[in-house]
Amino acid sequence: MHSTSPQRKPRIAVTMGDPAGVGPELCVRLLQNEEIARELTPIVFGDAAVLARVANHLSWSFSAPVIPASDWPGALGRTDQAGVLDLNCVAAEAVIPCRVAANTGHAAYHYLERAIAAGLAGEIDGICTGPLNKAALHAAGHYYPGHTEILAERMQVDRWCMMLTSPEITCSFVTAHVGYYEVPRLLTKERIGEVIDLTVAAMRRIRGREPKLVCCGLNPHAGEEGLFGQREEEGIIAPAVAAARGRGVNIEGPLPPDTCFLAWRRAETDAYICMYHDQGHIPLKALAFDTAINTTLGLPVVRTSVDHGTAFDIAWQGIASPSSLFAAVRLAANLATDPVPH
Amino acid sequence: MHSTSPQRKPRIAVTMGDPAGVGPELCVRLLQNEEIARELTPIVFGDAAVLARVANHLSWSFSAPVIPASDWPGALGRTDQAGVLDLNCVAAEAVIPCRVAANTGHAAYHYLERAIAAGLAGEIDGICTGPLNKAALHAAGHYYPGHTEILAERMQVDRWCMMLTSPEITCSFVTAHVGYYEVPRLLTKERIGEVIDLTVAAMRRIRGREPKLVCCGLNPHAGEEGLFGQREEEGIIAPAVAAARGRGVNIEGPLPPDTCFLAWRRAETDAYICMYHDQGHIPLKALAFDTAINTTLGLPVVRTSVDHGTAFDIAWQGIASPSSLFAAVRLAANLATDPVPH
Repeated sequence: MHSTSPQRKPRIAVTMGDPAGVGPELCVRLLQNEEIARELTPIVFGDAAVLARVANHLSWSFSAPVIPASDWPGALGRTDQAGVLDLNCVAAEAVIPCRVAANTGHAAYHYLERAIAAGLAGEIDGICTGPLNKAALHAAGHYYPGHTEILAERMQVDRWCMMLTSPEITCSFVTAHVGYYEVPRLLTKERIGEVIDLTVAAMRRIRGREPKLVCCGLNPHAGEEGLFGQREEEGIIAPAVAAARGRGVNIEGPLPPDTCFLAWRRAETDAYICMYHDQGHIPLKALAFDTAINTTLGLPVVRTSVDHGTAFDIAWQGIASPSSLFAAVRLAANLATDPVPH
Repeated sequence: MHSTSPQRKPRIAVTMGDPAGVGPELCVRLLQNEEIARELTPIVFGDAAVLARVANHLSWSFSAPVIPASDWPGALGRTDQAGVLDLNCVAAEAVIPCRVAANTGHAAYHYLERAIAAGLAGEIDGICTGPLNKAALHAAGHYYPGHTEILAERMQVDRWCMMLTSPEITCSFVTAHVGYYEVPRLLTKERIGEVIDLTVAAMRRIRGREPKLVCCGLNPHAGEEGLFGQREEEGIIAPAVAAARGRGVNIEGPLPPDTCFLAWRRAETDAYICMYHDQGHIPLKALAFDTAINTTLGLPVVRTSVDHGTAFDIAWQGIASPSSLFAAVRLAANLATDPVPH
């Protein structure tokens, strides 16, 4: 993981996301925000002409330094100045707002590819990804369920997990974008231990102290001593939790998945280890919609993401809230900053 | 389903639950409550001496009419007066508070048996069950996962479902107390249609109007058009929803299980049809802990239940909140009352 010295602000690559969605307008707002600029250096990986077009369309005054792709990582790429890395992937006039299209799907994919390369080369300190549209991605011939899988493949890691974090609740996922029926056979003591360790490391950075974790069971009532399920709690989850405790991790579980999200327990839990997508996403969305930030743990480059989609229903209208993007960019800067001074 | 005329208050059998838990003290509070007594007639199916002992232990002044088991359904059983049907199942001094034991497990089972018999005989209008302890039940040789299964077996119904309702959120369950891995093979179009119909009928009584339902998907993002899972959404859930719409039900779905519990959607949804236990219990407990009432739909007798356990950690101290029991008793009365005047 690349770390910045306390002297330099972290430089975060922000991918513009699908040009037809809310990504461009949110990037305009980001580059205009002075508070963000004091904390970190955002570099939008996207199309300068699309940003200009959306700002013009919304009658927003907007200007930002543009870095031609051929100049990267040139003079501007090494300074502390925010700006747009102009990847010139799609003609601004060819973007049809709020529409699934191969040209914008391909552009979104290309922004991400370039950000990954910049991250692996150490040219930036972290990546924050704007929303892409899966249907557009597929129309462009890029068959991935989402960002995370592209990142894991391109960065050649096999030990990673998704974590969603918000002030209210944080969840890491042992399994995520797989069918309901596939979950039981994907649970292993090793995988659960991996997710626990990745989560502890991330939460140490986020909280600045040793975190307290809760590990969820798989079955109703955490199996109720073998009454429900195939004893996944006793055979797989409990041993993983015991092993983590042996490594000094402050973790409890496996707990019944319904009662473990009660308010009093949330208040004393820094992060939950969830066995499957909806086990964590249901309470996250119900309790912290709009404030949860998605981060991929275990990558060689810090990566966070907004927790919303392209929002074609409201895109290009200037009404999308930038709060999730701002929080995601800040979390990337936080995770990219070594808490221990050099 | 038995219905009372508007002239008579509904008579609700309230089982005392495990004598070692919070059931007895909550029943004492119930019988002392004048507001409840104006709305309905609670008859506690339990042990009068245990109620007297817990009241004495807590220095509460308490008296209530006692109906000897041999007198039921005698003169008192036919009047409008609240009281205790004294089933004399356990000696009051033999109850060790806060302890799992066969004698109290057996007593709890017997109270329920008698309430079921009274319900089937039309001697009462509904049943509200106090908390029993599964371990104590098992110690007494009664091997059931819980109340619901005892009721379904004793009342010889095979078309029933569990519903949890609160002002904030209501969920019905296509599957409930089964292992995680068993769920996919238990989902059928017929079963989902059954749960939808039972829920619509109950919500009509509760809301006094045509309810609006949401049906959850099974897989992350409701399968995302076949990307995750075995197309349970397209093959099973969507056809069940379409068939219900054909029967005039106001229902949407299958929707992604995480976003369907967002605040704005909860506000416009009367009830959720959930595919498995934790899909509904996680948001229920996170959002409406302590106010959700468990009801078993499809039985020939109305049945509701507190949504908490025996709470051995705080039992016999007089500090357990009776709000869930009061709400459950009121819901039983509501469901037992025919909304159409005779």
